[in-house]
Amino acid sequence: MLERYVQKLTRDAKKASVSLGQVPTATKNRALSAMAKELERGSGGILAANKRDLAAARRAGVKGALLDRLMLNPKRVVEMAEGLREVVKLRDPVGAVIRQWSRPNGLKIAKVRVPIGVIAIVYEARPNVTADCVGLCVKSGNSVILRGGSEAIHSTRAIFRCLDRAGRTAGLPAGSIQLVWNTDRRSVDLLLAQVGGVDLVIPRGGEGLIRSVVEKAKVPVIKQYKGICHTYVDSPADPKMAEEICFNAKVQRPGVCNAMETLLVHRAIAPRFLPSMARRYLKAGVQLRGDPATRRILRDLPVKSATEKDWATEYLDLILSVKVVGSLKEAMEHIQRYGSGHSDAIVTKSKEHGGRFLRGIDSACVYVNASTRFTDGGQFGMGSEIGVSTDKLHARGPMGLEELTTYKYVVVGRGQVRK
Amino acid sequence: MLERYVQKLTRDAKKASVSLGQVPTATKNRALSAMAKELERGSGGILAANKRDLAAARRAGVKGALLDRLMLNPKRVVEMAEGLREVVKLRDPVGAVIRQWSRPNGLKIAKVRVPIGVIAIVYEARPNVTADCVGLCVKSGNSVILRGGSEAIHSTRAIFRCLDRAGRTAGLPAGSIQLVWNTDRRSVDLLLAQVGGVDLVIPRGGEGLIRSVVEKAKVPVIKQYKGICHTYVDSPADPKMAEEICFNAKVQRPGVCNAMETLLVHRAIAPRFLPSMARRYLKAGVQLRGDPATRRILRDLPVKSATEKDWATEYLDLILSVKVVGSLKEAMEHIQRYGSGHSDAIVTKSKEHGGRFLRGIDSACVYVNASTRFTDGGQFGMGSEIGVSTDKLHARGPMGLEELTTYKYVVVGRGQVRK
Repeated sequence: MLERYVQKLTRDAKKASVSLGQVPTATKNRALSAMAKELERGSGGILAANKRDLAAARRAGVKGALLDRLMLNPKRVVEMAEGLREVVKLRDPVGAVIRQWSRPNGLKIAKVRVPIGVIAIVYEARPNVTADCVGLCVKSGNSVILRGGSEAIHSTRAIFRCLDRAGRTAGLPAGSIQLVWNTDRRSVDLLLAQVGGVDLVIPRGGEGLIRSVVEKAKVPVIKQYKGICHTYVDSPADPKMAEEICFNAKVQRPGVCNAMETLLVHRAIAPRFLPSMARRYLKAGVQLRGDPATRRILRDLPVKSATEKDWATEYLDLILSVKVVGSLKEAMEHIQRYGSGHSDAIVTKSKEHGGRFLRGIDSACVYVNASTRFTDGGQFGMGSEIGVSTDKLHARGPMGLEELTTYKYVVVGRGQVRK
Repeated sequence: MLERYVQKLTRDAKKASVSLGQVPTATKNRALSAMAKELERGSGGILAANKRDLAAARRAGVKGALLDRLMLNPKRVVEMAEGLREVVKLRDPVGAVIRQWSRPNGLKIAKVRVPIGVIAIVYEARPNVTADCVGLCVKSGNSVILRGGSEAIHSTRAIFRCLDRAGRTAGLPAGSIQLVWNTDRRSVDLLLAQVGGVDLVIPRGGEGLIRSVVEKAKVPVIKQYKGICHTYVDSPADPKMAEEICFNAKVQRPGVCNAMETLLVHRAIAPRFLPSMARRYLKAGVQLRGDPATRRILRDLPVKSATEKDWATEYLDLILSVKVVGSLKEAMEHIQRYGSGHSDAIVTKSKEHGGRFLRGIDSACVYVNASTRFTDGGQFGMGSEIGVSTDKLHARGPMGLEELTTYKYVVVGRGQVRK
């Protein structure tokens, strides 16, 4: 029963994707604008549905940041609508010619951007993911199957109803956007098994969700496990610049993937740099965990002892592990060993050190003299993002509209055959 | 024991990849040239080893095309060496700037091509795959772990010894190229489980091998399942051009993935086109299998009845299934249903029909008025290829050096922090 339901969703999505891939940009934009308007018009219903989710969550003992993520208010609904309007402004990637050339035999070859096909989004409690993902998938010509978590299901359904109504009226092919209506966990497993039907799964949520998706998926997955981001303060470095960057990377928004989790400091600059840096962190409520050298330098301050586990932990909180290293090489080895390939930065006055770091660190985004917090589709100028990939294949780093496409080779001849 | 061995290979490959990714082009080219020379110098030993594989294969009852694929001779060894020299001439993709831009806050962002890391190649009896893959992986800065089939293991080892000797002498980092020395089947499973160690597996061989790799892999795989390629002869079409293209697509080399397996003909042109086309095929030894309409038109010729299974079969042989269709739409629906997303062609005089076909067919390579046999890295002008991907993510169609790379974002600032 559930199996047939998921198969039907997939079949309908596939069928829709053939048409949706050829729908003109204007139609897609009209649909997205209508969705934005419909969200605003349906705000009351969405907020009422959200209240039900919040009540259930409170009964289940959810609180703090988790509850906040689940919570909608009039402003957040408007922000969802504005997000869709931002996507309207972005350039349609479909049909763009990546490269074209002619062969000596006269064949004309073009590498042309096309939608991937059917994208499934498996996510947790954030209701805004529903609108964000529909916007990016529709604009890039992909059918989307949404599978939101049970915690937010009433909000998700209410948002989806608005989007769906607007999409139909605006003329999107039936099946372009679909929501797995129930919250049976087996529906995720079934989606992940639709080989040839679902072309890509993007899980969005905590590490547990992502690992479980990767473990079970028979179809391709692009994912972001975690962001264990480092900043290495080199010698020589401008201590003031280093302090601003390190403060921003940890404190500006600690709960996100591009926030710094580990600070590495060259031992030549550590005695000068660390004390004032640490005081500033402590004042901002940051808990520090240091290696022995760090604790020696900061012996008058409350610094816990960092364990092996700390170096491999994504705190997503106001906690920072700190290590003093003897060289750029040692810093790089630490990052290669404990990093997650997300975003890593060096603060240095040395061009040569900067170059070695940029070449040698195998992460999606590598920085010289800037905060890792810039790893973001918007900050990079790509417009909205559907996530940040820590994979190496297909898409790496912030994923925008282009990353939701593939390409095909279009070859035009006048009767050529192969000799 | 075996597990530790495969883990060590992977660890060494990973370690080597960090250096290999930064080795100058000249060093990589010198290594490839030395490998070519060493293959030619070691030809006698390679051929002696190949004799052992051939003898074992004959004892096991292998013959025909399979035995031919396994067979080496002096000319084929020279071709392997020449293949490496061709790769020397190709442009090094590593370090190429795909795009660069500045942000209003002054951040400079560059999207830079970098190697993927560690690539494992799992292949069957073709000994030349060993040299081809080493050439392309080394040039693209990737460490490679080879796992060749037991049928060719003596040849593979002999070839590998030459490549390895030359690579070491030329200064490639130790661990850049490695061969799984034994032929225990479990070593494949172990390779496929090296999450975080092996960055990509490329299986090369028959459908059985590929399905088994995909089924077991915990690491990313790029693959080509099969090439069920179609040519659709439209109305209006130039019958002479159509005949040349269809003959070439089927007959020029039937055992390869880009050869045509199914011919679709519009019913308005079928009575004129099919009889002479069929006679030419029959003369060339092609066995025909037709739908009822085809068999009516060709009732004087030996045409078997095509079954449902025929439409979904990659013959890789001088066999062709033929169907008469009522419209471009019907042809496209047939291709979407039975095709493998590899290469499909239309022969038409109508620009509008050509455009609809190119847009509507979701295959790696789509053709107007040319033979599907052109789907090939060399024919496309990309130089050598490591295979043709029927996947949609990361690489689609012929995979050359660029497709063996990923990218990272290199961000250079002067102290920028996020507001």
